[in-house]
Amino acid sequence: MIALHYTDGLIPVVVQDADSKEVLMVAYANDEAVRLTRETGFAHFYSRSRKKLWKKGEESGHVQEIREILVDCDEDCLLYLVDQKGAACHTGYRTCFYRTLEGEIIGDRVFDPSRVYGAKGS
Amino acid sequence: MIALHYTDGLIPVVVQDADSKEVLMVAYANDEAVRLTRETGFAHFYSRSRKKLWKKGEESGHVQEIREILVDCDEDCLLYLVDQKGAACHTGYRTCFYRTLEGEIIGDRVFDPSRVYGAKGS
Repeated sequence: MIALHYTDGLIPVVVQDADSKEVLMVAYANDEAVRLTRETGFAHFYSRSRKKLWKKGEESGHVQEIREILVDCDEDCLLYLVDQKGAACHTGYRTCFYRTLEGEIIGDRVFDPSRVYGAKGS
Repeated sequence: MIALHYTDGLIPVVVQDADSKEVLMVAYANDEAVRLTRETGFAHFYSRSRKKLWKKGEESGHVQEIREILVDCDEDCLLYLVDQKGAACHTGYRTCFYRTLEGEIIGDRVFDPSRVYGAKGS
């Protein structure tokens, strides 16, 4: 396994749908999250705001099953290629990148977040 | 335009090939780099190691022409959809994500870096 370069214990992770190739989200992982992702086959991250490890979809059921993990040239960024169950974004859109910089919504909303989450997304 | 949330003046940018949908690289931009990207139609970033703004391809000619800029739900990450000239990676691979976490090379090398760069890539 390639030795990864973490900054303050974290590495950014781009998550891409393995079939549609949509970029779904960007999050951060620590070494424990990377280890769990490899061992379980499901995407794990580290939340900087909540200061805890989390499994994507642990509350919503919208898990990300790993097809492949790629590393960039500098070994300081990861790309998870996944099968996304449901939607990646807690707002209900399939991808977190559902808007242009000008604010136009171009993504598809696939669920109603108020019916999936009690309070706030995962 | 959506108001972006920068951390220490920077926002991570995922660059994706607009046609092939390959994730090409991840870099950082400051507000000046985002402004220049919008105004010129070519991807600009901020180098944390060199502490300077740079235009992708300024040395190699491997520029990234912008098709669209998307923003994530938290407004703290950008996605540039681009037409990539040549290759994104200074190692000569089309994408910086040319290896699996296990170290297997899966990408295509499209140029010889020693013939493109004097010393080190851009």
